[in-house]
Amino acid sequence: MKLSILGCYSATPRALTNTTSQVLEMNNHMFLIDCGEGTQVQLRKHKIKFNRIKHIFISHLHGDHFFGLVGLISTFRLLTREADLHIYGPKGIKEIVTLQMKLADSWTNYKLIFHELSSNESQLIFEDDSVEVYTIPLDHRVYTNGYLFKEKPGERKLDVKAAEQANINVAYYRKLKQGFDVVNEDGVLIDNEKVTSPPEPTMSYAFCSDTAYKEDIVPIIKNVDVLYHESTFLEKHADLAPKTKHSTAKQAATIAKKANAGMLLLGHYSTRYDSLEAFKEEAREVFEFVTLCDDGKTFEFPSK
Amino acid sequence: MKLSILGCYSATPRALTNTTSQVLEMNNHMFLIDCGEGTQVQLRKHKIKFNRIKHIFISHLHGDHFFGLVGLISTFRLLTREADLHIYGPKGIKEIVTLQMKLADSWTNYKLIFHELSSNESQLIFEDDSVEVYTIPLDHRVYTNGYLFKEKPGERKLDVKAAEQANINVAYYRKLKQGFDVVNEDGVLIDNEKVTSPPEPTMSYAFCSDTAYKEDIVPIIKNVDVLYHESTFLEKHADLAPKTKHSTAKQAATIAKKANAGMLLLGHYSTRYDSLEAFKEEAREVFEFVTLCDDGKTFEFPSK
Repeated sequence: MKLSILGCYSATPRALTNTTSQVLEMNNHMFLIDCGEGTQVQLRKHKIKFNRIKHIFISHLHGDHFFGLVGLISTFRLLTREADLHIYGPKGIKEIVTLQMKLADSWTNYKLIFHELSSNESQLIFEDDSVEVYTIPLDHRVYTNGYLFKEKPGERKLDVKAAEQANINVAYYRKLKQGFDVVNEDGVLIDNEKVTSPPEPTMSYAFCSDTAYKEDIVPIIKNVDVLYHESTFLEKHADLAPKTKHSTAKQAATIAKKANAGMLLLGHYSTRYDSLEAFKEEAREVFEFVTLCDDGKTFEFPSK
Repeated sequence: MKLSILGCYSATPRALTNTTSQVLEMNNHMFLIDCGEGTQVQLRKHKIKFNRIKHIFISHLHGDHFFGLVGLISTFRLLTREADLHIYGPKGIKEIVTLQMKLADSWTNYKLIFHELSSNESQLIFEDDSVEVYTIPLDHRVYTNGYLFKEKPGERKLDVKAAEQANINVAYYRKLKQGFDVVNEDGVLIDNEKVTSPPEPTMSYAFCSDTAYKEDIVPIIKNVDVLYHESTFLEKHADLAPKTKHSTAKQAATIAKKANAGMLLLGHYSTRYDSLEAFKEEAREVFEFVTLCDDGKTFEFPSK
């Protein structure tokens, strides 16, 4: 699992800071999460191949999280993309994009599929053989979802030598990887765990931006390996957090602790602060494993 | 008159090149012309004060000319702008911006005034004491206008000594500056030109992007001091120009020559070319005074 931070500052793009966008690589998927203005240039700087992005998840319709989307869709068209593109985001996102395509008389030559969200309950919105994606309903000034990305367990690992010694026919190896006990050539039932070991542990990533402190999300993200949680403010501006429906670093850490997250990534910093170190210090008072995001940073998360 | 090139490349923003946007300073106005994605960051890099921009002119609704607009409007709001903002552009531009404001539940706290255009004739769309702005109907794949910015002549310059010697009462000086002949203290009619000299010559700027070769614009921009004309292609791709409704460098130069322009600025280059020099060389075969635009360049045009 690998995460590239294209932008992690709030409000407006500036000369040296970008608004929210991330790329999550998970089991050969390349998920783009939020798409602030300038995201396509950030993708180029990160040398991320545009064609590998097949799913884009937009948290909410504030500009610093999606003003780069229509430009990216348009650039995909100019680059003669052929692969389908799935867009997940709040109801209304389709109208915004298609209105601009209509007025530009520029329809995509690839299939653009919108998945508009309006539920206030966590939903499974994408699933294939190896990954599941769920919404995380957040509490912001407009309808907002975070997203939980979960690897599915792979097959059990077969110990071929042990299987041979147990005199199991090769035809049953697939069944063994799927976890079944099988009967060997001598008619004896062989316990699966004697010839296989558990699959690689799965990894999970939760993206939570933007939101006021919301404990309701804890059961949804329980035991997540990596939690990105917005931390717009420091304690000295804690009064602004509920007013603007954002969180402080300490609140982000409290959610991480209650959810028993493996680690916490902070981002969505207000540009009023000169240094980011205080975000880490304040979060660490509550939760130990805190890392600061910054534009251009890439995290590789080793399997457990 | 001063022109800052924020971006002058076609199609898509890249790591080192920006799509179309310019700032024209004329008689204390700061006109923003087109607004590709990333324009607000380019404005910051040029240290242009956001509040000085009161008029934005959008040529057409292709993304490389306006995908930065909604972000700029939104940033103006976050910066607690109070001054009115006038947007000139094709019909539909208001719907695009207001739909996004509605879905973000983020209305501006300043007055946003749209001037939607749909005429195929050149129109006077802005006028005050010192400047006039006209549309230049262009020929592109969607409805497109260039813009002609013209300084108005100032007052005549009064030679105070000559006026005193001609025994003219001070009360008439204003009339003299306005060009009238006046009667002096001895009852004699004094010829205005004896005591005044002509006002500063006026300057004019024409912005023409995007367009196929279109001679109809020549009478509109006749004798313009500075002509920006798109030159997407070189001669070796001349066949693509009419197909995509763009121009070659040579066609841009032909328009400049026929219009008797003072100088020609080239821009809107296709990103397929490694070097820009060939654009200048090909244009110079037709018209002598050719300058290449590039992102970050600023031109100061001396009065005549």
